[in-house]
Amino acid sequence: MNPTEFPTGSSMFSFLEEIWPYCRSITGNGVRSTLQAIKQHLPDLRIHEFPSGSSALDWTIPDEWNISRASVSTLSGEVLIDVAANNLHIVGYSVPFNGIVSRVELLEHIHTLKDQPDVIPYVTSYYKKRWGFCVPHRDLVRFSDEYYHVQIDSRLEPGSLSIGEWVLPGTSSREILFSTYCCHPSMANDQLSGIGLAVFLACWLREQPERRYTYRFLFLPEMIGSATYLEHHREWLKEKVIAAFNLTCVGDEHTWSYLPSRSGGTLSDKAVQHLLDFYTQESQHYTWNDRGSDESMFCAPGIDIPMVSLMRSKYGTFDAYHTSADRLGETVTAKGLQESFDMYLRLLTALDQNGYPITKILGEPQLGKRGLYPDLSIKGSTDGVKQLLNVLSYCDGQHDLFDIGNKARVNVEEVLALMELFVKHDLVEICDEPSKK
Amino acid sequence: MNPTEFPTGSSMFSFLEEIWPYCRSITGNGVRSTLQAIKQHLPDLRIHEFPSGSSALDWTIPDEWNISRASVSTLSGEVLIDVAANNLHIVGYSVPFNGIVSRVELLEHIHTLKDQPDVIPYVTSYYKKRWGFCVPHRDLVRFSDEYYHVQIDSRLEPGSLSIGEWVLPGTSSREILFSTYCCHPSMANDQLSGIGLAVFLACWLREQPERRYTYRFLFLPEMIGSATYLEHHREWLKEKVIAAFNLTCVGDEHTWSYLPSRSGGTLSDKAVQHLLDFYTQESQHYTWNDRGSDESMFCAPGIDIPMVSLMRSKYGTFDAYHTSADRLGETVTAKGLQESFDMYLRLLTALDQNGYPITKILGEPQLGKRGLYPDLSIKGSTDGVKQLLNVLSYCDGQHDLFDIGNKARVNVEEVLALMELFVKHDLVEICDEPSKK
Amino acid sequence: MNPTEFPTGSSMFSFLEEIWPYCRSITGNGVRSTLQAIKQHLPDLRIHEFPSGSSALDWTIPDEWNISRASVSTLSGEVLIDVAANNLHIVGYSVPFNGIVSRVELLEHIHTLKDQPDVIPYVTSYYKKRWGFCVPHRDLVRFSDEYYHVQIDSRLEPGSLSIGEWVLPGTSSREILFSTYCCHPSMANDQLSGIGLAVFLACWLREQPERRYTYRFLFLPEMIGSATYLEHHREWLKEKVIAAFNLTCVGDEHTWSYLPSRSGGTLSDKAVQHLLDFYTQESQHYTWNDRGSDESMFCAPGIDIPMVSLMRSKYGTFDAYHTSADRLGETVTAKGLQESFDMYLRLLTALDQNGYPITKILGEPQLGKRGLYPDLSIKGSTDGVKQLLNVLSYCDGQHDLFDIGNKARVNVEEVLALMELFVKHDLVEICDEPSKK
Repeated sequence: MNPTEFPTGSSMFSFLEEIWPYCRSITGNGVRSTLQAIKQHLPDLRIHEFPSGSSALDWTIPDEWNISRASVSTLSGEVLIDVAANNLHIVGYSVPFNGIVSRVELLEHIHTLKDQPDVIPYVTSYYKKRWGFCVPHRDLVRFSDEYYHVQIDSRLEPGSLSIGEWVLPGTSSREILFSTYCCHPSMANDQLSGIGLAVFLACWLREQPERRYTYRFLFLPEMIGSATYLEHHREWLKEKVIAAFNLTCVGDEHTWSYLPSRSGGTLSDKAVQHLLDFYTQESQHYTWNDRGSDESMFCAPGIDIPMVSLMRSKYGTFDAYHTSADRLGETVTAKGLQESFDMYLRLLTALDQNGYPITKILGEPQLGKRGLYPDLSIKGSTDGVKQLLNVLSYCDGQHDLFDIGNKARVNVEEVLALMELFVKHDLVEICDEPSKK
Repeated sequence: MNPTEFPTGSSMFSFLEEIWPYCRSITGNGVRSTLQAIKQHLPDLRIHEFPSGSSALDWTIPDEWNISRASVSTLSGEVLIDVAANNLHIVGYSVPFNGIVSRVELLEHIHTLKDQPDVIPYVTSYYKKRWGFCVPHRDLVRFSDEYYHVQIDSRLEPGSLSIGEWVLPGTSSREILFSTYCCHPSMANDQLSGIGLAVFLACWLREQPERRYTYRFLFLPEMIGSATYLEHHREWLKEKVIAAFNLTCVGDEHTWSYLPSRSGGTLSDKAVQHLLDFYTQESQHYTWNDRGSDESMFCAPGIDIPMVSLMRSKYGTFDAYHTSADRLGETVTAKGLQESFDMYLRLLTALDQNGYPITKILGEPQLGKRGLYPDLSIKGSTDGVKQLLNVLSYCDGQHDLFDIGNKARVNVEEVLALMELFVKHDLVEICDEPSKK
Repeated sequence: MNPTEFPTGSSMFSFLEEIWPYCRSITGNGVRSTLQAIKQHLPDLRIHEFPSGSSALDWTIPDEWNISRASVSTLSGEVLIDVAANNLHIVGYSVPFNGIVSRVELLEHIHTLKDQPDVIPYVTSYYKKRWGFCVPHRDLVRFSDEYYHVQIDSRLEPGSLSIGEWVLPGTSSREILFSTYCCHPSMANDQLSGIGLAVFLACWLREQPERRYTYRFLFLPEMIGSATYLEHHREWLKEKVIAAFNLTCVGDEHTWSYLPSRSGGTLSDKAVQHLLDFYTQESQHYTWNDRGSDESMFCAPGIDIPMVSLMRSKYGTFDAYHTSADRLGETVTAKGLQESFDMYLRLLTALDQNGYPITKILGEPQLGKRGLYPDLSIKGSTDGVKQLLNVLSYCDGQHDLFDIGNKARVNVEEVLALMELFVKHDLVEICDEPSKK
């Protein structure tokens, strides 16, 4: 499996434009449309439906929510809010309503962000029945009439929660897991970017001639979706998954961010820390306390899937987060998507070929007879082979490729290239597990 | 067990004024009077007497020393030193003497501190027989006569060493140990403050409706007293004591100080480090090399009781230390005593309720249905529950309350309050021991 | 075993002057002459010969190389290069040649260092057959004729590789190993200094009345020599050697340098780190990645002898390295040699007496009755015994002398002196192994 030229930045961006308008929530047709769009790229995507009322760990799958249209108008017919214009205008899971309300009553149902008066906030009320609209704070001045006509054509009734799952088997039954959520309406970095990256990484993997591990991609509603999936598959995952990643906020061009697993120190943590150390100028390392997504389920005590997040700007830290300003072309760019794709390819490639190299030769090998060492020794002549010798010296069956890179101060791609050379010269063999001391 | 308003600063101070004048040493009636005064507050205090000549680990209990009066006068009858004025004037364990001595001979028996010419130093000679007096260095000029009358009415003869012990049983046989020494004459911070804090902590504990651990308070002569106690009880202590504290120098208002156990890393160390981290602006962390009190016995190799000291100004570091300047109202204040009491209450309360919480629910629980989570989600709406979720996420049976506080960056009292909430909602149970992995 | 006045700096320097002119290489009579000179000091030095063609781990012992003379002259008879003047002039392992060559052809065989135009570089070609000369870069101007007479009277034919070995048995079968290489021609710090230090340390050891460990000194050609020795003795060494040192670059007066073992954390590493911490103002700590000598063989995966280097200026870091400027009196001084000798004596002495002291007395002992504690207690009177008490408090059977010194902040010689006192007073016994907890 080798990284190739894979024109993804702009393709990903186009795909995100396609799924942008769907009015997603934790259940309903917005999610299904999104999964269908993913299926265009990944035809063997399986879509699982879990009925309302089913248990999902400590949670219960709520009724399914769908909305066809919603608006607020003056009594003279002027439309002041129309969800068709931006699906952030409606509070997620708003119950149906149709009637005339006073200004005072309406304002109790309208949500704004005073600190960011130009943007529509993203608001939901999944588990308490209410209706509401969201508008930019500065638009409140437009609500000067005494009465308004509110129309919300939504349905909240038994249905099901949808999860997309795509699995690519490897030669090993051990797995690398990618999870991304698909329940947010039209927001770019904190929604679409993760889906786009997941889809294109899956496509790239499928095109590779071989791979060691099984790759599992989950597209699920945040929290309730991971609880639902874990309700059924946690034992399996705990046994099989060696590394897991929550794909989110991977579309901008800012400093890389890392959110560790709950315990820290897993292979996922080690791999991501290595990448940030060797491939970025600077990066932001958060703690588990800063988390805010599906790792809360996957890493919970007793579940303990080794999930980390390698992001650009972490959710919650950028102004546009959870507002209408989180928009394609602004928070997310084709360049940002391409960079994330490239970084994750490095990660995948290294993880898939990771192992514990062990030398087959006692003592430092004579590299000269293998053409790997200068035949004339003069001051400085061996500077060029020091890195090779350092990497080789850590091939003791106790260090994996990331450990070796860290100790020899060499990035994992160079370690991989050297391993190929070493294997070719029969200098090392690479074991799946650390050797017994 | 909850901290309550417990008017202690001024009560402690008054108690210390009461026991100030007793002429304490490692044996004798000064100690007994002190223990009797303690018994007024703790009627079931047991007073153990160990006869002179008995073994105390590597030590032997010396003869008992008592003194009724001692003075130095001119031959014309002018009293130049009178121990009645300050019992620091006499070298502890001075042998009886009555006679006329020359100026030269007298000065060989007079001790001063050149660097602190205004104070009387604290001097003892427990194991070598001699007599002596202590005066401020600047008073030496008063000794201009040729001859002096020295009178020391002391007795040094077989008797016993006294140790006070007060035990409050808990539901567990495991113990928390407090030790304080009672062998120094009239000095405030490096003597009385520890006794006062011990007595009032014991009183407070006795008034609590329940407690988990057994609490043992020892009032003993420094070093020889702890050796004596350990001679008889070390196996028991080693088996039962989970945390131990040497109470000394807890009466001033300066920066908190911490002296670790010999090995470090015990529960006592962890608890004190947490308190200093979360409840003080700054603190002074000493090493085991800086010790100077009973921990030398309790933490010695093979004994290894986990004893630490949480002090204000550490002994040996303040000018007044071991001099007549270590005086009530100067080095020790009611406010300082109250602050120490409050800090130790936190410590006691947290230790008594400490344990290893483990979640009873797989995955992040749905807090909304328990009324612990906002029912409307908008940017920032869950900031207030992040701390709760962080604390909950570490309830994996591997972390105790201090660990959880350290990881979630929450002080242990807030952790305790959350545990109460979690237990009430049946979210966690708190185990005595870490769970098996 | 105690360090004594041992006049070594100037004796070592004289010895190095004696062996300076031998034209050493990895085989041949230059090495043998050097070993014979060593044998003058260590009559029971054993000299092992390993025939050309023998296996040495991954290597094969090459043909033996000897050279009687070599020169380049003009056709008119002016000698431009004569190896008799400096044996760095000839490329090591140059094949025989006798003939007239053009200027162009000659220059292809001449090596210089452009960046250091005044010095002759040290060049070898052990495994590729070629001939060549080395000159200062600025001397190239002297080669203005069209043709030259080249004469190299060398022999490259089956023979043997020579290794010197000197063993001093101790009461324990466990060993401390010193290795130094003897294959470089006339260079002072990066060749002779290591040999000199090894010889004189061995002499000193032989004069001591007793020692615990067996001491093994190896004088071998770098890399191929250690591979040869390990081919035959690696199992033995791995079982017996508790600490190992590669002696090189120990003749100058600059900052001390430390190159760790591959794994780090061995007794060799701990001892050297302690010495640098307590006996030097500053020191340079390198990593395993910076290595460049026999530790590459001795510490290789699967061999894992705990070898470190304690040097002055590390090879490769000083300008004169591997050039004719690495000269006695310039890079190496009698004072530098003496300082290295003194430092290694400390190391040897501490290692030989190292162990895990354990107190024979429960609790802090009464030092007063042993005359080790002041009999009068006054502020400051016990300052002088704090160090003694600290050292004693770590005698718990878990810390060796270096650990104790590190924790008590006392250098290992003072720890040793205290141990002698403790043993005399029957306070501790010193065990070979840590005690079971």
